[in-house]
Amino acid sequence: MDQRNPRDLETNGSDEDVEAHHGRRQIIHKAMGEEAFVDTAVPPWTKQITVRSMVTSLVLSVVFNFIVCKLNLTTGVIPSLNVAAGLLGFAVVKGYTAVLDKAGLLKQPFTRQENTVIQTCVVASSGIAFSSGTASYLLGMSANIAAQGEEGNTPINVKQLSLGWMIGYLFVVSFVGLFSIVPLRKMMIMKYKLTYPSGTATAYLINSFHTPKGAKLAKKQVSALFKAFGFSFVSAFFQWFFAAADGCGFSNFPTFGLQAYAQRFYYDFSMTYVGVGMICPYMVNISLLIGAVLSWGIMWPLIEQKKGDWYSAELSPSSLHGIQGYRVFIAIAMMLGDGIFHVAYMLCKTGYSLVKHQLNKKSLESPSSTNSDISSTTSTPSSPCASPAARALLENYDEKRRTDYFLKDQIPTWAAIIGYITLAILSTITVPFIFPQLIWHHVLVAYLMAPVLAFCNAYGCGLTDWSLASNYGKFAIILFSAWVGLDNGGIVAGLASCGVMMSIVSTASDLMQDFKTGYLTLSSPRAMFFSQVIGTAIGCLVSPLVFWFFYKAYNVGEPGSSYPAPYGLMYRGIALLGVEGLSSFPKNCFSLCIAFFAFAVALNLARELLQRFETKHKIYRFVPSAMCMAIPFYLGGYFAIDMCLGSFILFAWRRLNQRKADELAPAVASGLICGESLWGIPAAILSLAGVNAPICMKFLSASVNNKVDGFLNG
Amino acid sequence: MDQRNPRDLETNGSDEDVEAHHGRRQIIHKAMGEEAFVDTAVPPWTKQITVRSMVTSLVLSVVFNFIVCKLNLTTGVIPSLNVAAGLLGFAVVKGYTAVLDKAGLLKQPFTRQENTVIQTCVVASSGIAFSSGTASYLLGMSANIAAQGEEGNTPINVKQLSLGWMIGYLFVVSFVGLFSIVPLRKMMIMKYKLTYPSGTATAYLINSFHTPKGAKLAKKQVSALFKAFGFSFVSAFFQWFFAAADGCGFSNFPTFGLQAYAQRFYYDFSMTYVGVGMICPYMVNISLLIGAVLSWGIMWPLIEQKKGDWYSAELSPSSLHGIQGYRVFIAIAMMLGDGIFHVAYMLCKTGYSLVKHQLNKKSLESPSSTNSDISSTTSTPSSPCASPAARALLENYDEKRRTDYFLKDQIPTWAAIIGYITLAILSTITVPFIFPQLIWHHVLVAYLMAPVLAFCNAYGCGLTDWSLASNYGKFAIILFSAWVGLDNGGIVAGLASCGVMMSIVSTASDLMQDFKTGYLTLSSPRAMFFSQVIGTAIGCLVSPLVFWFFYKAYNVGEPGSSYPAPYGLMYRGIALLGVEGLSSFPKNCFSLCIAFFAFAVALNLARELLQRFETKHKIYRFVPSAMCMAIPFYLGGYFAIDMCLGSFILFAWRRLNQRKADELAPAVASGLICGESLWGIPAAILSLAGVNAPICMKFLSASVNNKVDGFLNG
Repeated sequence: MDQRNPRDLETNGSDEDVEAHHGRRQIIHKAMGEEAFVDTAVPPWTKQITVRSMVTSLVLSVVFNFIVCKLNLTTGVIPSLNVAAGLLGFAVVKGYTAVLDKAGLLKQPFTRQENTVIQTCVVASSGIAFSSGTASYLLGMSANIAAQGEEGNTPINVKQLSLGWMIGYLFVVSFVGLFSIVPLRKMMIMKYKLTYPSGTATAYLINSFHTPKGAKLAKKQVSALFKAFGFSFVSAFFQWFFAAADGCGFSNFPTFGLQAYAQRFYYDFSMTYVGVGMICPYMVNISLLIGAVLSWGIMWPLIEQKKGDWYSAELSPSSLHGIQGYRVFIAIAMMLGDGIFHVAYMLCKTGYSLVKHQLNKKSLESPSSTNSDISSTTSTPSSPCASPAARALLENYDEKRRTDYFLKDQIPTWAAIIGYITLAILSTITVPFIFPQLIWHHVLVAYLMAPVLAFCNAYGCGLTDWSLASNYGKFAIILFSAWVGLDNGGIVAGLASCGVMMSIVSTASDLMQDFKTGYLTLSSPRAMFFSQVIGTAIGCLVSPLVFWFFYKAYNVGEPGSSYPAPYGLMYRGIALLGVEGLSSFPKNCFSLCIAFFAFAVALNLARELLQRFETKHKIYRFVPSAMCMAIPFYLGGYFAIDMCLGSFILFAWRRLNQRKADELAPAVASGLICGESLWGIPAAILSLAGVNAPICMKFLSASVNNKVDGFLNG
Repeated sequence: MDQRNPRDLETNGSDEDVEAHHGRRQIIHKAMGEEAFVDTAVPPWTKQITVRSMVTSLVLSVVFNFIVCKLNLTTGVIPSLNVAAGLLGFAVVKGYTAVLDKAGLLKQPFTRQENTVIQTCVVASSGIAFSSGTASYLLGMSANIAAQGEEGNTPINVKQLSLGWMIGYLFVVSFVGLFSIVPLRKMMIMKYKLTYPSGTATAYLINSFHTPKGAKLAKKQVSALFKAFGFSFVSAFFQWFFAAADGCGFSNFPTFGLQAYAQRFYYDFSMTYVGVGMICPYMVNISLLIGAVLSWGIMWPLIEQKKGDWYSAELSPSSLHGIQGYRVFIAIAMMLGDGIFHVAYMLCKTGYSLVKHQLNKKSLESPSSTNSDISSTTSTPSSPCASPAARALLENYDEKRRTDYFLKDQIPTWAAIIGYITLAILSTITVPFIFPQLIWHHVLVAYLMAPVLAFCNAYGCGLTDWSLASNYGKFAIILFSAWVGLDNGGIVAGLASCGVMMSIVSTASDLMQDFKTGYLTLSSPRAMFFSQVIGTAIGCLVSPLVFWFFYKAYNVGEPGSSYPAPYGLMYRGIALLGVEGLSSFPKNCFSLCIAFFAFAVALNLARELLQRFETKHKIYRFVPSAMCMAIPFYLGGYFAIDMCLGSFILFAWRRLNQRKADELAPAVASGLICGESLWGIPAAILSLAGVNAPICMKFLSASVNNKVDGFLNG
């Protein structure tokens, strides 16, 4: 049985599924096992949040906000900062505690839980730098950007930026998301056992930093992790030199030829996504590839042949009235289909499981009864060649220990629901004061929809590591712009509701990654939650301040300047599309959206039915995931190719040496993810310092190359 | 003790050296051991040359001559064809014998010796296509090319090309080389145990084709060989797509930046040279790197600063009056220093060993006395985990068997010497009839010098796989042009003597590679020799005919045409330089040449003295080879970097798993060499068909890229 099938994720505790989970855990969770930490005490949650960790978080938050804001205003491409946050947090506090230790003044040792808390806080605050939209939806309201658009440059559709209302707005909308994810937490991490590749990788990194000496397997894993880390870092460093400008460098390598490259099929030499592919189940990666082939290989070329008929031939390729519209809207429709199916299915299942409450309780309790036996086994030194049975016990022990700590400091669901409702009401009242273009019932509708979209995003992110928050934000722009209408300030209304939506959706996926990290590092969820609250507060304050620094110092949003902030105009353009209504969809786009929504539901339904009634060959394992298929609809197939390469490497490795592959693959994957991510920091510093790469590795067709040679030689 | 030191090569049988040889053999010769062929009979030499093998050779010769001639006339870059010859020979005859076998008509099975004979014959004949100079020195005599030169376009310095005298000339000069190498044969292969990477690789390939089933280690090696072969072939195939024009593609990858690339320091992604580096001893590769750093890193930049002082600033970078002159002449001086030292040293040693004849005889006979014991050991099935002692016996057995067959069918040295003298006299009489510009004593001097240069080239090629025949040819042009003088037809005289010299020097290295192949495949040297004679005869006939086809059909030698034949004018240019005499050397070049000649002698002397008197630390192992250092003087460091990468891979592999590395490295290296070489055939066919690669991977500095982007965007 193939244990890496994503469809095992949706099972909920029947006898057969316990087996499947063991199989998955063998690959994903076994590395850096908890047996290495048996003698390391886990501090109570109040000791996990320390003064030194919060000071460190504040300093790192400012640094990261600065980096993210600058990147936002230049290209809009932001690297994942989870790993860098974990690593820098470790470096700062470890340096500090090492000095204290030498001076004999250290009272509390530095733990991995504390490290996770710092990482969570920094991710939360720098996440705000992105979701606050200072370079996208907020900037799109300004007069400066409005003047660049064709239409809608009327007073009611423009809002002058000012530090005061921006900070207030962020405080009002940003905390709601925190409460929306709390009830999802247990479902995503413990029930569905989603991978969250970045979160898992960060956890392995943090665990490896704090591994007590003497653990043999852990040592091998740490060594593999650092080798992969070094390779990935050096590879990214090397690649940097060849990317002097857009379209240059390894990330634009037309591996399968220029025509395939034009359809976004190429290997972009991203070690991060190779690593992600090694962590994700095979079927996720194959689904991505199927989606890429279906969309960029078949559908978009067919639709492009209708150019001039289905949509105007004069449109730019990035116009939502043209081919880009099909890509974005069909992808959204398919994701919604998948997401809504899961929500509905989950509700049914929950009702069903309430009925079977008694039975479920028993099956949950059974592993804890074996706990004491296992502890006694593992406290004696275990041989490196432990029997399979002993290893299974160790794995069981890992999961047991993690689950115990994850469930130890509860955040009650009723508290989360009350928190969400209270904050949503507060926000519903306040936001219309800031944006008179929005009426209270608009905001309320946003808060009613948001949890569903947050679930979709957190779920998809757990499967594939892609957060699609900005896509859901764009969806909100379209919806509310259309609803409010141009004359009533629909553009500002749409952009403001984008903020409401994006805060929740983006928080849901980012912080769920952190909860996964916390789960794997035995951090208290309560400590994580408070760390997220503090990080969000820091972000709401620091992010607008940093933006204001740039906004006042430079001519932000001016095309051709150093800070063109491309997303400002793009988001305003989406709002313009929205106020023109559904009629502005390109031809047949709406019908296609409905078809793909239905297709997504059908895929899910087919899989569930197969899983229930076809138990012989387990064909359900080969039904692709609609969520995964939809992502490359918009982005193209290049990252699917990276990830499939990761799958292929894992597959080949397991063929050569299954035991070694199972032990070391997660560490190697984490190293690959972390190394390239960490290079993001020096790269950003170089970019801030205005240092450009010296070489452009350019890919030209033979005929263009002839022209260029002619030009260069005279 | 480091067994891969090149300096072990010059030892000659003292007790200490036997140990060293065993060490080297362990790495270079162990793979595809003869124990796999224990039950395979070796046919007598008369059965190794068969009618089917000669017919196959003729067909392949025509094909290869066509390819080489076409490449000669377009870019002048010729891939190594040894491997392709071995492989195609196998495919043709195997196909033929398989058909006969099925029909029950096969009388004589296809042996690896027969395969080697075909390969040798084809290499000999296609070697003529290069050394016949139809695209270089012969073409340079034609009126067409003379008209392009600035000076020397006088009747006495021009010779009308004609099929008749070209064939006659080739027959007269080409066979001399064959006899010059016969006495060198035993010295290079058995005494110095030079690696001849291409020859070794070809031998492994041929052995792997003919390995009888059931040999376990051989099977593993064949599998490793084919994996590396496939990887190398696919890699070259993939690289082809990105090399649409000159300066494009992986072979121009500025791995260490554009400035280093300008000084020819880069990794050119050539799997061939990585494989060569894995076969060559560490010290060879390090010497190459030292030479590259010394010349392109230090000397040439310093000399280039003297531009305008030491040499005219207006000269093109490829002019021998300018920087290129320093490169070519200093490299030649250093190689001559090394070569002449070895010749002198060898003569002394030979005299010494004649005195110690009795003692040597004993040490040569001692291994054969243990032969019968070993045969009985190996005929019983040996365990895969044989003890080191048993493995040493097997290795000893390999070498014993190879040596036996290599010495079986003798070609007496007196016959070789008489042959050389007879043919040289014949040539000395005939050549002045064809070229009245040459007087008999010129030709005689050439034949007196040639064996020394042939030795140098065969020796250097054995160490590094580089044949520098064309360099020695250029040296001859300079010398004889200057001697004869412009008014007496020095240009034609120089070009004609280039042919005399190049035939011998090129034959010496090419055919020594074949002898190495023959040694490793137990082919009879007598069969090899006759195969070479037949191949040379085919080449002398086919090569001018194929050239004549192109010459009559196209406007050969016209710049900008499809067949610009760049070397035609270049060789004539060198002759022009020659007739202007030594005074035309750039400033200080002659003094530098003398200094480096002395440096080469000093290096050799130092090593010999250290080896004799400093036996404790064996520092002599770390004295670099002057011959190796000189090669990158002219070519640049890129292939030295490839080869050092090969060394590094081998070093790392041996650190990880010494036994596996020793067993499989030669097979992997051979696969890497063969795969890329074989791609040369489809690449040439594509080139013949006028199919260009579709993409140019171009490397531009950031500023040039800006300009190009500006040009491309309007």
